[in-house]
Amino acid sequence: MRKPRLDHIGIAVRSIEEAGLFRELGLTVEHVEIVETQKVKTAFIPVGDANLELLEPTSADSPIAKFIEKRGEGIHHICLRVESIDEQLANLKGKGYRLVNESAVPGAHGCRVAFLHPAAGNGVLIELSEKHEEHVTAPEDDLEAIL
Amino acid sequence: MRKPRLDHIGIAVRSIEEAGLFRELGLTVEHVEIVETQKVKTAFIPVGDANLELLEPTSADSPIAKFIEKRGEGIHHICLRVESIDEQLANLKGKGYRLVNESAVPGAHGCRVAFLHPAAGNGVLIELSEKHEEHVTAPEDDLEAIL
Repeated sequence: MRKPRLDHIGIAVRSIEEAGLFRELGLTVEHVEIVETQKVKTAFIPVGDANLELLEPTSADSPIAKFIEKRGEGIHHICLRVESIDEQLANLKGKGYRLVNESAVPGAHGCRVAFLHPAAGNGVLIELSEKHEEHVTAPEDDLEAIL
Repeated sequence: MRKPRLDHIGIAVRSIEEAGLFRELGLTVEHVEIVETQKVKTAFIPVGDANLELLEPTSADSPIAKFIEKRGEGIHHICLRVESIDEQLANLKGKGYRLVNESAVPGAHGCRVAFLHPAAGNGVLIELSEKHEEHVTAPEDDLEAIL
């Protein structure tokens, strides 16, 4: 099985527009997207073959707004792209690791995702993500299948 | 100028040996190294073209031991590889960004590194790192030059 790869680092920020350091370093925002279900605006910044993903709450009851209120701005999670999310989750569950999502749920871009509990990952909130390889040439098909 | 790339994510852990989740996910530790100056043992885990860098304190007065005591295990910093660290630091300083290191200091593998203040990076402690390209075929030369 292929080894997991880093997909992105999610960073909770109060304002994407005011997150000036990343631009100052010569990085560029390639894509901005509103994720209604998470009440969050996301900005993708490529850093090699992974991305920084800035997460700005769009509502006071967004999970990211609550995170910022409690802990301040900073890294919220990291996302690892895995080959088989079902196999990974079954294995981790069998070994007693604590999971936030016991099975995969639909994520952005037609991915299937699941969060592990920070207690399982040495204090790091880890999202696993599996890409729907068969739909790689037509990502909008994935979205339609999910919506 | 080339855009910065993610080099590694530094994760503070009590014990590298007991950080079982990463192995369980199918990742492998490729390199373990003691960094005496930081009183830390580091384990590098490739995740695509970046690494997770587990940081285990080797002494109670290690900066990583203090971090864990205060905040628990978790992500300590992210490191971006830049083309010219001097230009980046001069630019950031000129624009009033808060820096931990006002100029680059020697890092591992003959790199020159500098930490920016978390207040500058939306709560994220960012390390900039510049590789000594001219020594790329003989990294041990770099180490000798520093020691």
